[in-house]
Amino acid sequence: MTSLNETHDPALSSWVESANSADTDFPIQNLPFGVFRRAGTTEAFRGGVAIGDQILDLAAVRTARAIRSTAAANALRAASGASLNALMAMGPDAWSALRLALSRALRAGSPAQVKLGGALVAQREAEMARPASVGDFTDFYTSIHHATAVGRLFRPDNPLLPNYKWVPIAYHGRASSIGTSGQRFARPKGQILPAGANTPVYEACKRLDYELELGAFVGIGNALGTSVPMDKAERHLFGLVLLNDWSARDIQAWEYQPLGPFLAKSFATTISPWIVTMEALQPYRAAWTRPDGDPQPLPHLDSPDNRAQGAIDIALEVWIESERMRGEHSGPSLLSRSNFRDSYWTWAQMLAHHTSNGCNLATGDLFGSGTQSGPRPEEGGALLELSKGGKEPVTLANGETRSFVEDGDTITFRAACMAPGRARIGFGACAGTVMPAL
Amino acid sequence: MTSLNETHDPALSSWVESANSADTDFPIQNLPFGVFRRAGTTEAFRGGVAIGDQILDLAAVRTARAIRSTAAANALRAASGASLNALMAMGPDAWSALRLALSRALRAGSPAQVKLGGALVAQREAEMARPASVGDFTDFYTSIHHATAVGRLFRPDNPLLPNYKWVPIAYHGRASSIGTSGQRFARPKGQILPAGANTPVYEACKRLDYELELGAFVGIGNALGTSVPMDKAERHLFGLVLLNDWSARDIQAWEYQPLGPFLAKSFATTISPWIVTMEALQPYRAAWTRPDGDPQPLPHLDSPDNRAQGAIDIALEVWIESERMRGEHSGPSLLSRSNFRDSYWTWAQMLAHHTSNGCNLATGDLFGSGTQSGPRPEEGGALLELSKGGKEPVTLANGETRSFVEDGDTITFRAACMAPGRARIGFGACAGTVMPAL
Repeated sequence: MTSLNETHDPALSSWVESANSADTDFPIQNLPFGVFRRAGTTEAFRGGVAIGDQILDLAAVRTARAIRSTAAANALRAASGASLNALMAMGPDAWSALRLALSRALRAGSPAQVKLGGALVAQREAEMARPASVGDFTDFYTSIHHATAVGRLFRPDNPLLPNYKWVPIAYHGRASSIGTSGQRFARPKGQILPAGANTPVYEACKRLDYELELGAFVGIGNALGTSVPMDKAERHLFGLVLLNDWSARDIQAWEYQPLGPFLAKSFATTISPWIVTMEALQPYRAAWTRPDGDPQPLPHLDSPDNRAQGAIDIALEVWIESERMRGEHSGPSLLSRSNFRDSYWTWAQMLAHHTSNGCNLATGDLFGSGTQSGPRPEEGGALLELSKGGKEPVTLANGETRSFVEDGDTITFRAACMAPGRARIGFGACAGTVMPAL
Repeated sequence: MTSLNETHDPALSSWVESANSADTDFPIQNLPFGVFRRAGTTEAFRGGVAIGDQILDLAAVRTARAIRSTAAANALRAASGASLNALMAMGPDAWSALRLALSRALRAGSPAQVKLGGALVAQREAEMARPASVGDFTDFYTSIHHATAVGRLFRPDNPLLPNYKWVPIAYHGRASSIGTSGQRFARPKGQILPAGANTPVYEACKRLDYELELGAFVGIGNALGTSVPMDKAERHLFGLVLLNDWSARDIQAWEYQPLGPFLAKSFATTISPWIVTMEALQPYRAAWTRPDGDPQPLPHLDSPDNRAQGAIDIALEVWIESERMRGEHSGPSLLSRSNFRDSYWTWAQMLAHHTSNGCNLATGDLFGSGTQSGPRPEEGGALLELSKGGKEPVTLANGETRSFVEDGDTITFRAACMAPGRARIGFGACAGTVMPAL
């Protein structure tokens, strides 16, 4: 893994004033990548980097010739198009070179400020696009707390299956319906077996849920027939986003045997638009351990580096804003908090496992972490858990209750890495709104 | 659905002599599309149409200006690049116009023969590429005979799950590892739980299997949030290929609960290189019925046209050639025959179901039909069925036996539509060879 370098220095400040605020998600130590254009225009989408409440327009940085190092300039060219795939394909040395150059250019006192003053676009004036073209989307299941809680609802006597502690369980997801924060979609219809019935009906989902996940974008792929070993796995990952794996629980319950979830999840998946690079997350790496008595992973899923710092301390939050809350201007209501540090499996293990049969990953592939629930019941990363399968509705700040997501609800995920003496590394928002079924 | 037209006339013959042989897969009534170049060269891959033992080079047809109708010429331009996606995106009217123009140009006595004599490349001298860039790959499970036989191995008391007769069961598959006939791949490794053990091992698969499937390429997609109704569903499909959904049964058994198959199938999927268009298959449409006593499909999966001609009569074969057979020059040995007519669900039902929750399909998406097993035990579309889960090895023509696929084995699928008084519509070969694990 990359070690700390000058870009991580918590003392750095930027000539973009809003980046120096203690509560910004995007200080100069973060520098996440996205794809944007000015909202309401037909401008070309291009790469940008979030800095405070602004976006540094990477196409404009190129035009301004504000970056001198050849490695960084090559990466900048790759990052200034309508998707980040070209940058992602270049690998970690190129990503680091560009990060370093942008960090230097955005620092307080940088001579580049003169050239780059015109390269800023306010985030509130921007329209964000999907940051990369996604080939295959794989959704993991890395929270043992989620797996146990959900398993208990379906199989009270046998909540956690015997493979869970050995296999980073995953399934292939649907790539075409991945959208970006702000996505609005119609409540899905589907086949549902009403309680006590023998015959299913085709109707609007009644148990619509979110799933709080992180997503990881694959940067460099591997050839078919090769496996990526643990000690190289993270070099293949470009960075992380928030990911909402919207789920229709009633459709899922009827369809999922024996081949797993399909239409229950393929109608929409929402990601946050800013990819926080693995390098930016480096100060928040943490030891990865197994609870006492649990088996250690098989050798191909184990490494000293993974044990030392395979985990990442990322605080996660889920908020809901209902139609009524919007009318009352009461603001959204917190649904839960959890932390990615509690994941049972690490990104390196997910990637090593995924390629352990020779499967080829490609630039732009997306991994979902699976729902990130914490050990306590109130840390459930889905309403299914918080409401005990719908039996104990959750009370919101304004007195409304929810068993599942209702029409008009906006679900927003937020996440940040925070620690005393370190720069806050935030993810921005991942928001999606459910509209009535068509 | 398209009705019969002059391109289906069994009396048509071609000035390409080999297309007039009674046993060719590619008579002038077929005209399947693929992507090729001359083997051993660095020529650009381009679209072609199989005719007898030749390929009509569509880029050369363009250069020769042998096609006059505007609609056909536009489709020809789209078909002459390195993937067929552009043609597939144009829709059935364009596909039909091009088919008609090619049929007329290739007919015995066509004045186009003079211009097109130089546009032929022998199939034996060609290297075939994946015919389209695949976005999402969805694998269905449409053979009730396969579902019952496999279910019996895993759940003797409850072989067929209650949702089977209502839901065209499917899961998302891996798109990146789809290869074309001739694919050679290393036996996958993976986590396997040895019989009687509590701790899994990571080792080479011991129960490697094929699955005999058809694949369907989506031509025109649909927007996110929309559903394609049954009576429009087939207009979205461009055509069919053979598909081998290679499966590692021991990896599958350990990993598949609760989210379905993952690494057991993501190491390789092989398709045949020639896409037989839905229009070419039109003479072999057949009534689709349910056995007495089975429920009829829900209204959104039902239509008069689907009942009248939703099925397709396609005879399927599986052949094996072992290392020893190659040494003995004894030729391959037949493993099984079955027919796609026995599928419990039709393509229209698969597509309508897939979009019934608003999921968006895109040009180049690939559907697998699921293993096509017939009603009789010897019609099993996978070794798992033929060998009763490995307990009763199959005896091959040269006396060798097989419970599962061994290193060096080449598995070849062949398929054809055949009926008295109608032209044979064949699929060519879908062959893949298993190499030793790395």
